[in-house]
Amino acid sequence: MKVLMMISNGFEEVEALTTVDLLRRGGVEVNMCSMTGELLLHGSHGIDIMANSIWSEAMVKDYDEYDGVILPGGLPNSHTLRDDERVIAALKKFASDSKIVAAICAAPCALERAGLLVGKEATSYPGCIDETKCNYQEIPTVVCDNIVTSRGVGTAIDFALTLLRLFKGPEVAGDLADGILYEG
Amino acid sequence: MKVLMMISNGFEEVEALTTVDLLRRGGVEVNMCSMTGELLLHGSHGIDIMANSIWSEAMVKDYDEYDGVILPGGLPNSHTLRDDERVIAALKKFASDSKIVAAICAAPCALERAGLLVGKEATSYPGCIDETKCNYQEIPTVVCDNIVTSRGVGTAIDFALTLLRLFKGPEVAGDLADGILYEG
Repeated sequence: MKVLMMISNGFEEVEALTTVDLLRRGGVEVNMCSMTGELLLHGSHGIDIMANSIWSEAMVKDYDEYDGVILPGGLPNSHTLRDDERVIAALKKFASDSKIVAAICAAPCALERAGLLVGKEATSYPGCIDETKCNYQEIPTVVCDNIVTSRGVGTAIDFALTLLRLFKGPEVAGDLADGILYEG
Repeated sequence: MKVLMMISNGFEEVEALTTVDLLRRGGVEVNMCSMTGELLLHGSHGIDIMANSIWSEAMVKDYDEYDGVILPGGLPNSHTLRDDERVIAALKKFASDSKIVAAICAAPCALERAGLLVGKEATSYPGCIDETKCNYQEIPTVVCDNIVTSRGVGTAIDFALTLLRLFKGPEVAGDLADGILYEG
């Protein structure tokens, strides 16, 4: 299994890196793909990280290799991704191919702009999507068909383990939860 | 308030960066100080980050500026820190000055080597310290006098919020827990 994480400056460090860490622990390949043109990315709380790749037009033909796309939260990252036509096109492509499309915290606003939340159960950080235009749920992580949304730093492990369950099954996710001493 | 995080290659990304992120959100300055001689550090799950500073002998005279020292887990980071005389000297200095000395996952082994766990309540990732040589507790985070220990990725938010409570008080920590939608 292989997933694409689209990411830009002002990403929320815990949301992004908990997801990458736990998916990799569970055997899912994660490509942290910078949308800024630079490998070095600045987190919203002053942590600088190196992405794995820089997005280029040539990547689009490789989307078929991936099993899902994930957007971390944080500002301005979430709004930058929402306003990026390359991201919107990727979200629509992955969704129409029935692959996992996931976002946490403020980043579900990008899924909303891509039209993927209409008629779906979804969540987000409070106030970050229009609760009247989806079936809004105040629970840590919502799975609705192939759309996965979650709420924030406090739900990042739940988000990552939910994604791992979808990609690798409940046993892998459960074993990892035990291994990291998670009691959520 | 200002804290020193000593860190080297093979650090556990979630444990290190959740702590940095949440302490900074709560108004605590965190200096991620590389013990490797390089700013670029490699996490144990393939995430590369930039430290804020590189340790040098000149830093020792600045230890008085800090209110605590924190060691993230991960391998080989935890063992590298345990075997580093500069780290052991810092732990002893901070402890003797009654400042916060904190470690998570495998890193409490460095506190053990510094002799700081004798007669103390403490915890760690299972098997990482000698449970017969302290008052070992199987709870997410243990505060015993100025020594703070925690268990792993699944307890990283609890560890960070516990440290924030000690540095900035329960109201700041409680507000942050609410703000990140943490229900631990």
